[in-house]
Amino acid sequence: MRKISDSTVRRLSLYLQFLEQFAAQGETTISSAALARRGGTTSAQVRKDLSFFGSFGKRGLGYSVPELAAKIRDIMGLRRQYRVVLVGAGRIGSALIQYPGFAQRGFHVTAIYDKDPKKVGSRWNGLVVRDVRHLEADLEREPTDIAIVVTPAEAAQDVVDRLVEAGVKAILNFAPVQLAVPHDVVVKSVNMALELETLSFALANR
Amino acid sequence: MRKISDSTVRRLSLYLQFLEQFAAQGETTISSAALARRGGTTSAQVRKDLSFFGSFGKRGLGYSVPELAAKIRDIMGLRRQYRVVLVGAGRIGSALIQYPGFAQRGFHVTAIYDKDPKKVGSRWNGLVVRDVRHLEADLEREPTDIAIVVTPAEAAQDVVDRLVEAGVKAILNFAPVQLAVPHDVVVKSVNMALELETLSFALANR
Repeated sequence: MRKISDSTVRRLSLYLQFLEQFAAQGETTISSAALARRGGTTSAQVRKDLSFFGSFGKRGLGYSVPELAAKIRDIMGLRRQYRVVLVGAGRIGSALIQYPGFAQRGFHVTAIYDKDPKKVGSRWNGLVVRDVRHLEADLEREPTDIAIVVTPAEAAQDVVDRLVEAGVKAILNFAPVQLAVPHDVVVKSVNMALELETLSFALANR
Repeated sequence: MRKISDSTVRRLSLYLQFLEQFAAQGETTISSAALARRGGTTSAQVRKDLSFFGSFGKRGLGYSVPELAAKIRDIMGLRRQYRVVLVGAGRIGSALIQYPGFAQRGFHVTAIYDKDPKKVGSRWNGLVVRDVRHLEADLEREPTDIAIVVTPAEAAQDVVDRLVEAGVKAILNFAPVQLAVPHDVVVKSVNMALELETLSFALANR
């Protein structure tokens, strides 16, 4: 398979969201133009993105919605369920575990950890917050591919080191810090203040 | 000024976070190597990023922490305060308005809107949730540069059209939809499910 860029992966994920919305409306075929319009891109880009998966669609008829959705799910690794652990029982963590989009796509938060004794033992969305010192033992019993880290900045690297040591291979990081991980571990960071700052930069430099 | 890429802007924002942490620890000078280590990048990259602002730092002495922080704040448009309105009083909105990093950087959420009568009138972090039908009148009285949109996907474009019409120039979007805006308006989208999907993609395609 050819190398797929991060921006292509992000567009594929968006296309899948649109395809699911089209399917919910009973649509069975979709043109590259309609996908492009929803995705804020061009038909040529859509066709290029989808060409990674070989020949697709019938000229003049467009793409089959269920077929294309299945193909994207396949390439995106979404034909399986993922166990996800969340470290840091703060406000963003609270919003995240209740986010319906996660479970819909097969990402199931199966455990929440914190080190604050006031939070440990409390119930969150049906899960009991566990003391983070149980992290290694729990992951040994129930291996997990994905972790979401929502700790303060100064705690994040230590938590990530422990997650990696325990076999976690993919981390979604909300702590405002750059994380060091081995080459076989993937990290995506979401930094809320940074997103706002890219806006202030754009406002200041128009 | 030369064109600064989005990825440079994001690194500058990270450098600023690190500089503020160094300043809090009483450090007055910092080497490009130390900034690079914290930022997960190279000294050469740090020097290149900072060269956008002209000559900086003294060879062998590193950068002055307060001087460099002030310079980055300047270029990032962070020497002023921003009013921010939030549309959509859901769980992610709740987490966002309580996020201390926003106010620390000069982003002040001054109003929250929703259309759900059950939410309108409730108190959120010291603010009373307002009916979204007041959006235009409020923005006319108190112009706002930045809006955070946390509505369901199907409501987002309509809300954004109204914000743009009312003079908002920068939008941070959490709705899982691609937004159409005029060329003089900047949109950044944060899509939680999409971030997890880039992880599942990486896991599936190692």
